[in-house]
Amino acid sequence: MQHFLSVKDAIDVQALVKEALLYKKAPYADKHLGRNRTMGLLFFNSSLRTRLSTQRAAQNLGLELMVMNVGQDGWGLEFEDGAIMNGDKAEHIKEAAPVVGQYCDIVGIRSFPTLVNREEDYSEKVINQFVKHTGKPIVSLESATRHPLQSLADLITIEELKTKPRPKVVLTWAPHVKALPQAVPNSFAEWMNAADVDFVITHPEGYELAPEFVGNAKVTYNQEEAFKDADFIYAKNWSSYEQYGKILNQDPAWMVTMDKMKLTNNAKFMHCLPVRRNIVVEDAVLDSHHSVVVQQAGNRIWSAQVVLKQILLKIIKEESPYLF
Amino acid sequence: MQHFLSVKDAIDVQALVKEALLYKKAPYADKHLGRNRTMGLLFFNSSLRTRLSTQRAAQNLGLELMVMNVGQDGWGLEFEDGAIMNGDKAEHIKEAAPVVGQYCDIVGIRSFPTLVNREEDYSEKVINQFVKHTGKPIVSLESATRHPLQSLADLITIEELKTKPRPKVVLTWAPHVKALPQAVPNSFAEWMNAADVDFVITHPEGYELAPEFVGNAKVTYNQEEAFKDADFIYAKNWSSYEQYGKILNQDPAWMVTMDKMKLTNNAKFMHCLPVRRNIVVEDAVLDSHHSVVVQQAGNRIWSAQVVLKQILLKIIKEESPYLF
Amino acid sequence: MQHFLSVKDAIDVQALVKEALLYKKAPYADKHLGRNRTMGLLFFNSSLRTRLSTQRAAQNLGLELMVMNVGQDGWGLEFEDGAIMNGDKAEHIKEAAPVVGQYCDIVGIRSFPTLVNREEDYSEKVINQFVKHTGKPIVSLESATRHPLQSLADLITIEELKTKPRPKVVLTWAPHVKALPQAVPNSFAEWMNAADVDFVITHPEGYELAPEFVGNAKVTYNQEEAFKDADFIYAKNWSSYEQYGKILNQDPAWMVTMDKMKLTNNAKFMHCLPVRRNIVVEDAVLDSHHSVVVQQAGNRIWSAQVVLKQILLKIIKEESPYLF
Repeated sequence: MQHFLSVKDAIDVQALVKEALLYKKAPYADKHLGRNRTMGLLFFNSSLRTRLSTQRAAQNLGLELMVMNVGQDGWGLEFEDGAIMNGDKAEHIKEAAPVVGQYCDIVGIRSFPTLVNREEDYSEKVINQFVKHTGKPIVSLESATRHPLQSLADLITIEELKTKPRPKVVLTWAPHVKALPQAVPNSFAEWMNAADVDFVITHPEGYELAPEFVGNAKVTYNQEEAFKDADFIYAKNWSSYEQYGKILNQDPAWMVTMDKMKLTNNAKFMHCLPVRRNIVVEDAVLDSHHSVVVQQAGNRIWSAQVVLKQILLKIIKEESPYLF
Repeated sequence: MQHFLSVKDAIDVQALVKEALLYKKAPYADKHLGRNRTMGLLFFNSSLRTRLSTQRAAQNLGLELMVMNVGQDGWGLEFEDGAIMNGDKAEHIKEAAPVVGQYCDIVGIRSFPTLVNREEDYSEKVINQFVKHTGKPIVSLESATRHPLQSLADLITIEELKTKPRPKVVLTWAPHVKALPQAVPNSFAEWMNAADVDFVITHPEGYELAPEFVGNAKVTYNQEEAFKDADFIYAKNWSSYEQYGKILNQDPAWMVTMDKMKLTNNAKFMHCLPVRRNIVVEDAVLDSHHSVVVQQAGNRIWSAQVVLKQILLKIIKEESPYLF
Repeated sequence: MQHFLSVKDAIDVQALVKEALLYKKAPYADKHLGRNRTMGLLFFNSSLRTRLSTQRAAQNLGLELMVMNVGQDGWGLEFEDGAIMNGDKAEHIKEAAPVVGQYCDIVGIRSFPTLVNREEDYSEKVINQFVKHTGKPIVSLESATRHPLQSLADLITIEELKTKPRPKVVLTWAPHVKALPQAVPNSFAEWMNAADVDFVITHPEGYELAPEFVGNAKVTYNQEEAFKDADFIYAKNWSSYEQYGKILNQDPAWMVTMDKMKLTNNAKFMHCLPVRRNIVVEDAVLDSHHSVVVQQAGNRIWSAQVVLKQILLKIIKEESPYLF
């Protein structure tokens, strides 16, 4: 694996999931793989789960770590070619990225969308410029339009908990107080489309995800219909793609409730967290046997660890082709 | 040791002190004890000594570390059951704590009191919710009402420096410009009451500590009387418990001076630091042979290290009962 | 090496450069040198390159690391003797420094100048107080008037790339939008004066550096004359030393351009980064074969690593004199 930016970087999705589950049983099996190598984690936006789980995964592989909160240090980056840099941006990506590449063997980047400029966000300007200029493998720690480490952890969780070969998985929009990115639902859709599941998306009108992510998924505005016989309910709020970054609807009728869970096939309830209780989902659901959100968050370690393993193997192979 | 929240978690206070002093002579004796385990340090409030000394202690035991400044990343936590989370709190402790527990083997928490709501502070709401929901051992890095790693370091320092079997130890209130928590004096009193010392507390009227911490200590409003023949003077400001969180007195006559030190039995001067010079204590005292504040701060490493050792031993014992 | 604050701490500049280039070929040759020792990095000001490269260097030597953003944690330090600390400074350097010294074996300090009080800045008050009170080796991560880890990396880069025994090296002032410290040009001048190069400084009138740094360098207000036959062009903005901290000139005619590079002996273009494109230097130069700024930034690792090695050797020698 060269970089990890989307499902397209996973050569074999099922193999990744299987290896991740092996790591869950034997976390330190490859402790020597990262020896004398360093991963840098650059956070342009705040992070809890991604930060801690990626650190743990890297440590399990024996990698050294350097973590930087880029925003807090006021390191404004310029991305425009030809810019006359007389404003508040102190450094151009053309220097910043290759310099970070001098200090790290693998670089993780978290950078959220503007939610204002759709074209810019969907071109993945920030992370793609790091890919172009860093000269080292880049791991997305959530980019403008995708959160692949989360999606892989989601798939691992489904694999662990499914009770039939091809479960019904429902991604449902849910209300929220803020305008949120589409990265998690986009990415989840992309990975579900690559997995062996019966995938349904449900949301109010106007919340259609970008077609390239929806793919062949069934889409319905009728949440109750979607929930029928579902094996997994994956709740998430997102802002509109159409009317970009806007909140069109905060209708509490879209909250996931115990009554709705009764329509399902005793489904597992999933959410990437953090989740606002009694806005996105009722207390009763999160506090019931349906909820697997903590196990799902725990699987973030194995998702990151298997990705870092693949990247390390490629680095080692390139350095020492005779080993392979 | 399951958790470390107060003196009650120390099965044998004297044994802890002795083991700490052994670590001071041989810091790396148990370097392999923490192998393949990770400690997370979550700071809801800023920290210098606690942060660095706990990191060093963990490194001495071979633990991996993950440090998060929770406040700076704007991770507002909800603690109320049944809350409708439509405000600025993005995550409930019921998810946050067990998720952190997925990534760490031991979790350290620093969370200061509100100094507004006494009942809430003295119920230790924050740290107790982490104990309840994390599913992993919790170490207090200073909670609303206690700072046990500091108190253990204080006791180690007294053990190192005492010149008689049962020294006279005086906790004296001192002036300050800000309203400070009662955590350090509460905790110090709790540990002194468990140690073999002649313990006296002195403060102006209205600064009585909570009775459950004062215990059987002698209490006097007469600072000079308290200082007579003292072997250790422990200075600290705190705000009122009675008129909760209020500053009732900034009388400079309560500052610790060289003249007052002359009343003592050539006492050692202690303070948990940071200390405001010429407000809490005169320069002359801090710059004299009386002051042991740097040695006391240095002992924070051994205090943390012996606590982490006890917790690691319990983890290992539970995982591999046949080893013991 | 006891401390690393300026070129004066380098016993043999050429030997340091040679050892650094050996580390570049074999980064982990001394991995066991730092075993069971900890370096603390205290940043009073923000940092990217220095932070990451020093971390990497320390990791290459097997050192443990503790990194603190001092400013962000609001840890206001008092430096005045006899101060009555009733303001916003919570701790005196007389306690803070020795306490940090209790937790770390080597301490790195970054502290920028005020650019207001020249006497204070040029007395190096902050870093010198850490030297005085910490009781452990201090490494400058850029102080008020010097940036020696940068200058050593600069010299390493010149050594790597020079095509004649005694190259012509030109330090040129360049425009900027902000008032910047003199630390980088001061330090560069100090190191070039200690190296075997033909050293020229060029800047507009009023931008004279302090005489103790200029030394025997040739100084000219004529940038074009300075560039003639140069082998290395080192661009940097700085504010006035004379009219302390002031911007006297933002004349874009001082920007480094491709036309000016044509006057040189196919010179390498150097800058410590971050660099503002099309203000300090034209895109055309940075995007050409002239620019070696990324390689120069990469050499920060080897600069820090060779300094830490020298310091570790002195620590080990003092602890175990019979080893040597």
